[in-house]
Amino acid sequence: MTQKKIITQAKGFHFAGLYCGIKESSKKMDLALIYSTVPAIAVASFTTNLAKAAPVLVDEIQMKSGKAQAILINSGNANACTGEKGLQNAWSMLKQTAEQLKIPEKLVLISSTGKIGVQLPLKKISQGIKQIAPELSPLSLEDAAKAILTTDLFPKFYGVKAKCAGKEYSIIAFAKGAGMIEPAMKHATMLGYFMTDLNIARPLLRKIFSRVIDRTFNRISVDGDMSTNDTAILLANGLAENEQLKEMNSDAEIFEKKLEEVAQYLALKMVEDGEGATKVVEIRIEGAKNEKEARLAAYSVARSELVKTSFFGQDPNWGRVFAAVGYSGATFDPKKIDIYYGKVKLVSKGVSTAGNSEAKAHEVMKAPYFTVRVQLNKGDGFFRMWTSDLNYNYVKINAEYRT
Amino acid sequence: MTQKKIITQAKGFHFAGLYCGIKESSKKMDLALIYSTVPAIAVASFTTNLAKAAPVLVDEIQMKSGKAQAILINSGNANACTGEKGLQNAWSMLKQTAEQLKIPEKLVLISSTGKIGVQLPLKKISQGIKQIAPELSPLSLEDAAKAILTTDLFPKFYGVKAKCAGKEYSIIAFAKGAGMIEPAMKHATMLGYFMTDLNIARPLLRKIFSRVIDRTFNRISVDGDMSTNDTAILLANGLAENEQLKEMNSDAEIFEKKLEEVAQYLALKMVEDGEGATKVVEIRIEGAKNEKEARLAAYSVARSELVKTSFFGQDPNWGRVFAAVGYSGATFDPKKIDIYYGKVKLVSKGVSTAGNSEAKAHEVMKAPYFTVRVQLNKGDGFFRMWTSDLNYNYVKINAEYRT
Repeated sequence: MTQKKIITQAKGFHFAGLYCGIKESSKKMDLALIYSTVPAIAVASFTTNLAKAAPVLVDEIQMKSGKAQAILINSGNANACTGEKGLQNAWSMLKQTAEQLKIPEKLVLISSTGKIGVQLPLKKISQGIKQIAPELSPLSLEDAAKAILTTDLFPKFYGVKAKCAGKEYSIIAFAKGAGMIEPAMKHATMLGYFMTDLNIARPLLRKIFSRVIDRTFNRISVDGDMSTNDTAILLANGLAENEQLKEMNSDAEIFEKKLEEVAQYLALKMVEDGEGATKVVEIRIEGAKNEKEARLAAYSVARSELVKTSFFGQDPNWGRVFAAVGYSGATFDPKKIDIYYGKVKLVSKGVSTAGNSEAKAHEVMKAPYFTVRVQLNKGDGFFRMWTSDLNYNYVKINAEYRT
Repeated sequence: MTQKKIITQAKGFHFAGLYCGIKESSKKMDLALIYSTVPAIAVASFTTNLAKAAPVLVDEIQMKSGKAQAILINSGNANACTGEKGLQNAWSMLKQTAEQLKIPEKLVLISSTGKIGVQLPLKKISQGIKQIAPELSPLSLEDAAKAILTTDLFPKFYGVKAKCAGKEYSIIAFAKGAGMIEPAMKHATMLGYFMTDLNIARPLLRKIFSRVIDRTFNRISVDGDMSTNDTAILLANGLAENEQLKEMNSDAEIFEKKLEEVAQYLALKMVEDGEGATKVVEIRIEGAKNEKEARLAAYSVARSELVKTSFFGQDPNWGRVFAAVGYSGATFDPKKIDIYYGKVKLVSKGVSTAGNSEAKAHEVMKAPYFTVRVQLNKGDGFFRMWTSDLNYNYVKINAEYRT
């Protein structure tokens, strides 16, 4: 068997990334372009933050057409909290992209990420748009993935192949996100771009994308902060030439499973790259009254600063997990709770287990990925999500971000 | 004028603090006793965490009598998540205290703070109870204040004098709290003990105490975690011999104001002593739709890790404040928001103010206490609370707490 290679191409999708002058101090790439040779069906999910950035406000209008052919993304400046002028700049970068690519304006989407409250350097971006169009290539997904990064330590991209009614298709994606990641919302929580050449009807695509994002991008927590710019977009251009997928049959199930594989891979990479993170921890709440209460308990544990610092210290301080579940709003009987770190049971029916279980749990916590499982023994409610540890580097990165 | 001295005595209240062997490694005091020479009216506020510690469960039963004469408090062990045996231990320490002081069991309250999930060393505590009763003195409030500390860096106590219908009375109090402090609940958020010799009817006392705690202890945030042991108790023994205060008249208003002065002093000391804190920041939300929404926005800002690390870095990163208000659930028009650091206006109608306002705001943030004020320009809703910065020491203290 040959080693598995990450798929980075899907029929008709071209990419480019370059430096246009926004990230003056680092001189790293700061402009990315996604282009489909034919108009694609588009579905998207945006931040629910009331302080929406200009590009999000623009994209929400653009999405009404349900189609897109290009997405321009700049990093280094979020074009957020920039008022009327920010909105004008956003429309301007959109129009210039359409002009340069010779496609209708209604088929262009834009995103921005980076510093808040500073106007975009529009001249540099205009120059960049002129330069980036000729760079488009089916081989350049990784360049685009690099060009959208801010405090991220590494680019995040992934892709898979599958078959639908005998026709092969690809799902490819790239994302960014390391800080300002908040789980408690219904929409996307960072920048993520998904491309597939599958031929699929938009209503079905929207349903599947929404479910997948809810189980992946919306279940990660780095610091509990929600960005003004969060965006996830999926383009499907139909070039795989399969008969159009219209309803939830076995082929659609395969597509959903594959899309989830891609989205989960990127979500976990974001936690791994969480500002300063050294651990990715899966939080599983089982036996809650219902899923809603399981969700409350999971968020409470995943966001607790005391729990997260104990992950960094590799200290199996289950009392902090217990306390976080206790104030989560989920109902349960403290005399029935069981808590596991990996396979090590630390709490049985509400009290500490005997023996050297804490020493064993400490060993579990040495791994870069482990699971904390809370069994409430009340009902069938289940929820899982992922969080990171909290450590010195998080403070360092965020105290010194701008100064 | 002579310098103001902190009042530490109220008629009939005696205190003691000593080391009984719970804090083996530090040998610091770990047992405190409060005693009133006559039975006092008692009102209390406990944690809303479902995972309540044994002493809290016991006190909730004890409070049904509405009276108390003694409170025994141990530090170093929280007697939380300790199951049936923990509950037996809690009752046992209560009974021994009553026996030693020769008072009815129903007049004794107990508290515990410290490590979770470990059974109390009952023999040491029994020995301590025998030793502590003879140590009681009207002069020892500071000893008791020291004996209840855990990760606190300094003891917290305060007191004032006032007059009611011509009779002088005192309000004295001590508290502990440095980590595991959470604002989003209706009850006390740490250990706090208030004593007064005022003669006051219990229904009125309960109303006033509840309002005061809500405006002080419940408005501070260090890390957003809620303890299993939070308790605030007020004892009023009536020895000031004023005619009993029964309704909200001008004397009751003076009492409420004085009690709030004491409680706010202790609350701010807790934020100042927040694990690793270098700053106390007052968060003020003005012009929200109503108080409920102002509260949502204030908590969101006060709990944001990104905002709190920027306080540490003295970086006037108002975009993080803006974003935190944006996802708080409070409704507002982003085009109407104003943001101030101290008196420096950084955001006007949703966009950054010109000039060197950021440099001026950076100067404001150099102080150990400053205000961040958000004006939503929507309605009359107002809420203020206090938070600390998030820095390296918080991580250090909490990653290494037990290992």
